[in-house]
Amino acid sequence: MDILFWHPSFDVREWSELLARALPQARVRVWQPGDEGHADYALVWQPPVEMLQGRKLKGVFVLGAGVDAILERLRAHPGMLREDVPLFRLEDTGMAQQMQEYAVSQVLRWFRRFDDYQALQAQAQWQPLEEYPRETFTVGILGAGVLGAKVAASLRAWDFPVRCWSRSLKNYPGVESFAGNEQLPAFLSGCRVLINLLPSTPDTVGIINTALLSQLPQGAYVLNVARGAHVVVADLLAALDCGKLSRATLDVFSPEPLAPDSPLWAHPRVAITPHVGAVTRPPQAVEWIATAIGQLEQGAQPGGLVDRQRGY
Amino acid sequence: MDILFWHPSFDVREWSELLARALPQARVRVWQPGDEGHADYALVWQPPVEMLQGRKLKGVFVLGAGVDAILERLRAHPGMLREDVPLFRLEDTGMAQQMQEYAVSQVLRWFRRFDDYQALQAQAQWQPLEEYPRETFTVGILGAGVLGAKVAASLRAWDFPVRCWSRSLKNYPGVESFAGNEQLPAFLSGCRVLINLLPSTPDTVGIINTALLSQLPQGAYVLNVARGAHVVVADLLAALDCGKLSRATLDVFSPEPLAPDSPLWAHPRVAITPHVGAVTRPPQAVEWIATAIGQLEQGAQPGGLVDRQRGY
Repeated sequence: MDILFWHPSFDVREWSELLARALPQARVRVWQPGDEGHADYALVWQPPVEMLQGRKLKGVFVLGAGVDAILERLRAHPGMLREDVPLFRLEDTGMAQQMQEYAVSQVLRWFRRFDDYQALQAQAQWQPLEEYPRETFTVGILGAGVLGAKVAASLRAWDFPVRCWSRSLKNYPGVESFAGNEQLPAFLSGCRVLINLLPSTPDTVGIINTALLSQLPQGAYVLNVARGAHVVVADLLAALDCGKLSRATLDVFSPEPLAPDSPLWAHPRVAITPHVGAVTRPPQAVEWIATAIGQLEQGAQPGGLVDRQRGY
Repeated sequence: MDILFWHPSFDVREWSELLARALPQARVRVWQPGDEGHADYALVWQPPVEMLQGRKLKGVFVLGAGVDAILERLRAHPGMLREDVPLFRLEDTGMAQQMQEYAVSQVLRWFRRFDDYQALQAQAQWQPLEEYPRETFTVGILGAGVLGAKVAASLRAWDFPVRCWSRSLKNYPGVESFAGNEQLPAFLSGCRVLINLLPSTPDTVGIINTALLSQLPQGAYVLNVARGAHVVVADLLAALDCGKLSRATLDVFSPEPLAPDSPLWAHPRVAITPHVGAVTRPPQAVEWIATAIGQLEQGAQPGGLVDRQRGY
């Protein structure tokens, strides 16, 4: 079995060793320009257009949870990957726990007003603040896939009311489900905290704009750990400055890195992290890919299949 | 049944209504100077010396988890409360969840380096940082009572190695237990994070000093949510400034409120909250007290009995 590998920044040696251990029958090689040799599978992140062109592969694995970048490249270069080659994205592989850590630490920090206490500390002010009632501290999650479901569960564990919004209704324990554009206003009107975990598709680009933000309760909090393209930054800043939003925490931007002159950096109620919400962990990713290849070899269908039309 | 009530700041009406509902047979009155009338129980926080003097009560309930203040007053005024009157402190009654929220949000914040990212944001710097390996991010809890056990469990849920130190060995699932002064060095040597939840007693006052801090691994983090008297502030600041400690978060001080000229306020790696770690919730506290009184009336022994010699 031949596996092609391509990643602009991953440690190739680490991945090759892990793959060799998990798939002893596989020969793994890093693709080089001009390599048109036989391959069964490809593991890629931002692959060059020529790498996959015309290949009749049994599967292509994108080494991350988001496939917006590769699908965008596919739209620009329709011949880049045959229509009949199944494209997979990693499902979880350690990313869910990282997203849970980020979301829970951030929601608890807002709920317990630690940012407000930090501002008071800067003025040497001892001032216990009124507590927020937990029953009104509803957390809404945009996007209810594998990551959204796990983040929802981790917040339910802290007794916050949790709701999610997605294309189709979900049945997650203790989580109120809303679906489709017609239920978006009802969903938003109750979100004291809005967490974005949507896939980035042509339908969701720019979704966090003034029209959406204005439907949140006064003083809401926004956490974006999905894609920068979801947020209209000028609208977000306006919502912060008029008091609609209390605070925003952003891990993703468009483009990245965030420009040094972006007004987001210095905003007193914006927190910025440099796209570290959830990274792909090689050992878990390789384990997942090896299992998926095993299923494909036996004619079974692994999870994570990308619907190229739907966009995720 | 007659119940005396005393609290310098609680809403007496709220407590009276809750008590009347939970104990319909009880007559609750706020103690007034000169009141020497009959009483079966007393619910108090920082009571005046004369309030309980000479009374043969069936039980005194301290309206909080810490009894250091009342025991100190008892040492100064030995006749303030008869030796044969059992003294109880509230066990949990909603405080454990608040401590869990504080501890988990703080530990995750350190683990995910959000404070470091905040410092980078202040310089408009986009710089993903090396992640900390979870298996070396051991959290050690000083004090392993009701609150310590629950905080330990909430951190285990995030897969951190967790250990505790107390007078006697504990058997909490997944938590490494250390006991007594002879095991303190071994306990400390592995604590990447140290959380203080000890009771404040003559034995533990000043325990967080240079001798203790020097036994922590380089770059450790300290969270104090117990009592200010546990910490020698000059030693803590020295440990921060020499790099022994990465950061400290303090909720409690001695005295409170923290003096406006304390160097803690402006230290860039100290976070301060004004003793809001866990507050007594009247509904849960009254439910707990009503249950305890029911047990005492039937000759049973409720939890939370204070050993006046031991100090908690």
